Amino acid sequence: GSMPKKPPPVESKLPCSLRELYSGSTRKMKISRTTVDANGRQVPETEILTIDVKPGWKKGTKITFPDKGNEQPNQLPADLVFVIDEKPHDVYKRDGNDLIMNHKVSLAEALGGTTVNFTTLDGRNLSIPVTDIVSPGYELLVAREGMPIVKEPGNRGDLKIKFEVNFPTRLTHEQRAALRHALGG
Amino acid sequence: GSMPKKPPPVESKLPCSLRELYSGSTRKMKISRTTVDANGRQVPETEILTIDVKPGWKKGTKITFPDKGNEQPNQLPADLVFVIDEKPHDVYKRDGNDLIMNHKVSLAEALGGTTVNFTTLDGRNLSIPVTDIVSPGYELLVAREGMPIVKEPGNRGDLKIKFEVNFPTRLTHEQRAALRHALGG
Repeated sequence: GSMPKKPPPVESKLPCSLRELYSGSTRKMKISRTTVDANGRQVPETEILTIDVKPGWKKGTKITFPDKGNEQPNQLPADLVFVIDEKPHDVYKRDGNDLIMNHKVSLAEALGGTTVNFTTLDGRNLSIPVTDIVSPGYELLVAREGMPIVKEPGNRGDLKIKFEVNFPTRLTHEQRAALRHALGG
Repeated sequence: GSMPKKPPPVESKLPCSLRELYSGSTRKMKISRTTVDANGRQVPETEILTIDVKPGWKKGTKITFPDKGNEQPNQLPADLVFVIDEKPHDVYKRDGNDLIMNHKVSLAEALGGTTVNFTTLDGRNLSIPVTDIVSPGYELLVAREGMPIVKEPGNRGDLKIKFEVNFPTRLTHEQRAALRHALGG
């Protein structure tokens, strides 16, 4: 007979939260597959596979379990491949190793000064004072508060806080005059 | 013999300024082409064609001059086609029948009130007072100051003025306190 053929690998997505990709996590996956017994009969089988999601893993990272796919008579068993997918997060967006966060401030905060309070993906509460004038589109870079970098253990990307300035919808004549005066306009 | 063949039309672009497309213009085009004389000899010929650009014409409008393309022996002369193209303008952008203009104001003007002065494509000086609070991205619509509408003589699209607000780069502590106070923040 000829050499038994190896079928192409079986791929499935493994959706992970940004928090899991930040801190790492251990995922147990129950898989159902078909194996072939000594008599050449196909037998269903379930198994639990463990995946150690490493801090900093990105969408598209592949984890291969050799020979854990379905088995057909007279063929080698297929490999089973999990592909990391990233679930959207309410606050943070990922951009490579960096994180991006949008932050709205009032015009009073934008001009008078403000403090940004937020919770990191590993649950730390940070408080960053903003002393610059916050113009629309102003970006504050918080060093090393981005995602862990797989190949540089202990190192992290940056966090970019992008500001949106909410203007008041109504101002009295007195307010408008005072603002114009204060701005020297 | 067989019927003389009509070759495909010859197309050339006719770049027009937004001002020409707004007010209309008469363009004289000198063309050089080959004709066939009574003895079947090809003879070079130049001719001046007149194109009446109508107010409101758009990019892509085609004007056909029948039989004004090159002539080959034993063929019908080709048609000559001009295709209107729109040259970019420093101030105005066209969006269908509307015009779009960007306008920068200082924060003092945005909050305290301002007047937009501008010159229309037909040279009128307009002065539009802005009493609303100008937040970033604020859009002011000036009715019927857009492009003429070819199919509705006398009618015009709108002009959209899009505002950009320039924040001050520096403010003293006193200014910041006064602004915060005036904004009630």
